Amino acid sequence: MGLCPKKEKVRKRAIRFDGLPPVALGGRMAYGRYMFTALDCLPCMVRQTAEAAARATADPARREEILRRACRYLSEMPLAQTPPEAARDLHALVREVSGCGDLFAEAKRRYNELLLNAWPKLHEKVRRSKKPFETAVRLAIGGNIIDFGTGHAIDERRVFDTLAEVLEQPLALNALKELHAAVKRARQVLYLADNAGEIVLDKLLIGQFPTCTRVTVAVKGGPILNDATVDDARAAGLSPRADILSNGYDAPGTVLARCSADFRACFEAADVVISKGQGNYETLSGCGRANLFYLLKVKCPVVSRQLGVPLGSLVALQEAATAPLR
Amino acid sequence: MGLCPKKEKVRKRAIRFDGLPPVALGGRMAYGRYMFTALDCLPCMVRQTAEAAARATADPARREEILRRACRYLSEMPLAQTPPEAARDLHALVREVSGCGDLFAEAKRRYNELLLNAWPKLHEKVRRSKKPFETAVRLAIGGNIIDFGTGHAIDERRVFDTLAEVLEQPLALNALKELHAAVKRARQVLYLADNAGEIVLDKLLIGQFPTCTRVTVAVKGGPILNDATVDDARAAGLSPRADILSNGYDAPGTVLARCSADFRACFEAADVVISKGQGNYETLSGCGRANLFYLLKVKCPVVSRQLGVPLGSLVALQEAATAPLR
Repeated sequence: MGLCPKKEKVRKRAIRFDGLPPVALGGRMAYGRYMFTALDCLPCMVRQTAEAAARATADPARREEILRRACRYLSEMPLAQTPPEAARDLHALVREVSGCGDLFAEAKRRYNELLLNAWPKLHEKVRRSKKPFETAVRLAIGGNIIDFGTGHAIDERRVFDTLAEVLEQPLALNALKELHAAVKRARQVLYLADNAGEIVLDKLLIGQFPTCTRVTVAVKGGPILNDATVDDARAAGLSPRADILSNGYDAPGTVLARCSADFRACFEAADVVISKGQGNYETLSGCGRANLFYLLKVKCPVVSRQLGVPLGSLVALQEAATAPLR
Repeated sequence: MGLCPKKEKVRKRAIRFDGLPPVALGGRMAYGRYMFTALDCLPCMVRQTAEAAARATADPARREEILRRACRYLSEMPLAQTPPEAARDLHALVREVSGCGDLFAEAKRRYNELLLNAWPKLHEKVRRSKKPFETAVRLAIGGNIIDFGTGHAIDERRVFDTLAEVLEQPLALNALKELHAAVKRARQVLYLADNAGEIVLDKLLIGQFPTCTRVTVAVKGGPILNDATVDDARAAGLSPRADILSNGYDAPGTVLARCSADFRACFEAADVVISKGQGNYETLSGCGRANLFYLLKVKCPVVSRQLGVPLGSLVALQEAATAPLR
């Protein structure tokens, strides 16, 4: 039996863009992939690796080895992978050479604590809002500023300035209505978390879901930048409102083909998927999954170009409604 | 015959710092070298190469080849060379792959013109100043902001804002008196120019030298970033007040060992050498030449650390008075 025209189109897109056969997910779905590594990403990756190396070790010989090997990797790596896949390999290199396991443990602890302390005020702000769902979405997007991968300095003041700004700033892409409608009728929501600290604000948004909705928060499978892991999500107090699930892979995004079977089953089964941050957008954009919503703050020129919105924009975007292969 | 203790010390420094025998200059002098490439320079070099590649060609395949080869180069290059030597090789790679000879021809023309138009006002400012020599030095340092290698955006407004600032801003390192005294008694001054546009302001300073002083302005041996070449120096109207001399090499600095015999003879013979900008400082710092003065604005963290002064500082520094080998 031949594929229907719509399915045919999706398969062609998948093959054209990544040169690989579509990813099989439980034999039922396959996803195209669109956001490859841009040439503009290379300088940023060297910068990010140099910063990680400096954080990991004071030994100049090890820092030199990391940077030499990172440059060699970039001279040879396929551009037909998403930026978070390259970032994952570069950070693995930093860990291998330095012997340092979690470079951002202290930063993650600090920003979780910072936002937990601010929680009562922020929660009150949502409760008193005329549009509590929108306010919670805006604060959850604002929390996305706590990102140690972008090369922009983060501090307490910048976080709270951003949380004040996002309440007023227009959304550059606005699928709030669609998201709200989808969440209201969902029995099961999968929430792809991004960074520690930020995850405390995700809790505000999850608090706006119907109480009968089952919520799973997926986190990274291992330490990568300041992305939240299972421990960070627990420290942020996400359970018992939500189940916490490792996605099984330590990229600063969601690389479906590398994630665990448990995670992929959850990704398939959920009625709605909410994806936080640039890394998850970079790895999932174009996958064609229904009821997938991206919430992020645009912090890099490549993502800004990809989305067609200015740097600093707030984005609530629904994944294009192209039906995935089934 | 053995070396005197002073000479012995200089030779040791030269060998300790660059692992190479001292550079023979007409069999009479040798120079140590101190500023090697820092690991922090690597991300900046990839950034600079990516910008140059984007300027040189719109063809993604060529841009990719440039960046891949640049990363390979950085993974293997000796750190025991100065940053401008690496930059020279990377820009040669951009030219080779893109076929584009002078990426900054238009920018150089534009900034020469901009400063030539401002010349009457600036000249009047020096003439009316109570300390015309100091004012001219300050403006010449201010012109050093016109640098397309740093990754900071340059525009007309930033140039004139900087020229206003430098008249008030304290010098972080201040060898003005020593420079003025050395110039007053010099019969021959060698002026190592940096960027087009900036070179128009160098003319203001040269105008403050005694009229009987013979002045040679040395420029780069080929197009590199927006560094002035012979044509740019002519366009800035430097002759007939000064002789214009190519240094014979296309690094964005002064790599003595690679410069022409003519240039090196002039470098030896001059009573005073004035070195403009970061690149010339990076390649000459530690050479031990007597009566060598650096004038620059600090625009990068590595130079800032090397000099022990904050980013943005104005610097008038005399090369350490260690006698060179003779």
